[in-house]
Amino acid sequence: MGFKLHNFYMNSAGRRVRTVLHLKNIPFDYVSVDISPASEAQLGDAYGKINPMRLIPTLEHDGVLLTESLAICDYLEELYPTPSLYPADRMERAHAKAIAMTVAAAIHPLHNTRVMKYLGQSLHLDQKASAEWYVHWADKGLHALEALIERAEQSRQEDGSFVFGKVPSIADIFILPQIENYKKLGLNLEPYARVCRVVDACNIHPAFIKAAPENQPDFPSP
Amino acid sequence: MGFKLHNFYMNSAGRRVRTVLHLKNIPFDYVSVDISPASEAQLGDAYGKINPMRLIPTLEHDGVLLTESLAICDYLEELYPTPSLYPADRMERAHAKAIAMTVAAAIHPLHNTRVMKYLGQSLHLDQKASAEWYVHWADKGLHALEALIERAEQSRQEDGSFVFGKVPSIADIFILPQIENYKKLGLNLEPYARVCRVVDACNIHPAFIKAAPENQPDFPSP
Repeated sequence: MGFKLHNFYMNSAGRRVRTVLHLKNIPFDYVSVDISPASEAQLGDAYGKINPMRLIPTLEHDGVLLTESLAICDYLEELYPTPSLYPADRMERAHAKAIAMTVAAAIHPLHNTRVMKYLGQSLHLDQKASAEWYVHWADKGLHALEALIERAEQSRQEDGSFVFGKVPSIADIFILPQIENYKKLGLNLEPYARVCRVVDACNIHPAFIKAAPENQPDFPSP
Repeated sequence: MGFKLHNFYMNSAGRRVRTVLHLKNIPFDYVSVDISPASEAQLGDAYGKINPMRLIPTLEHDGVLLTESLAICDYLEELYPTPSLYPADRMERAHAKAIAMTVAAAIHPLHNTRVMKYLGQSLHLDQKASAEWYVHWADKGLHALEALIERAEQSRQEDGSFVFGKVPSIADIFILPQIENYKKLGLNLEPYARVCRVVDACNIHPAFIKAAPENQPDFPSP
């Protein structure tokens, strides 16, 4: 009974949901789905029955399986409204969700493991061309996120380091894992001061720290 | 004052929002953003200020700009709760959103105009390779949608042709435009009986008919 999260330490959509679970202090069992190229557990029959799209994560609640990170976050928000993932103002709520969706639907899908694999194995792109693909979409995404955070700042009701003020929202929760991937790959984030400020704020917040890859049970020991 | 929808007749994310506006009987001004290859208005300075991600649609509400179709739909749902875009049951609501997100984040982004253009113009893929890319992701998406609709049927509280019974939800609203694109391209939908049933139900529903490409003011005259 209770919650089981099928996810993987280095999966960024899983990290979004982990952050929400920790932010709301919801206990859960961590079920590791090894999506590393050597294992590809997401392509096996067992995970296919759990998540027909074969993406990470899946939340299991009392045996019921729920897919898609934003649907999972909003479900948890309904069950445990405090602390909320959304600002109090209705239009800010919509903007927060739009930023989360920009990451989930406009940025992340083009960097996904399955897509990068297709570029290499089916289209036979070399490393340089694959990197160009990655950076092309990252640049567009970063530009948009910076502009959307600026737009939020112009209308938000509270100042602060997070997108909508002093506490994190769904916007920050979706931004962080994406940008951490970019940092790991050495992308130049200097032109995106607002994005960097948000990331710095997330990285010293307890719920985000608990959800970080290196603090997961399936993180490889040195 | 009121609502303005920046969209285009043949854009599928715009069609989702149009369907919601018609379903809820919300009057709106239709602002056409010509994303056809000959025009690419979404890449111009004017639209960049409206939508920094340069995707369609954008909803303008009393001058405030809101991006991302699911964020827009949920905002309209808060403002005009009846008829609801979501089933009454909490877990069904989550499943409905998961299906919408599967289309918005896992399927559609890989078919997007900007991606198909990159494949052709930057990666110099020929028509056959571009078509293989398209069908590869379409097959995975269709398989997942069929399985998720089947999962919904096993637990839903009401029978009917739509995913969650006799009335359309956010799931149907997001599924329809994607599958209509597949039909237009001649993809084989025969293995996906549930998806086809949902599409047929949508296509005889007044709100879906009003939102169809051929009924928009920017649909090319013959």
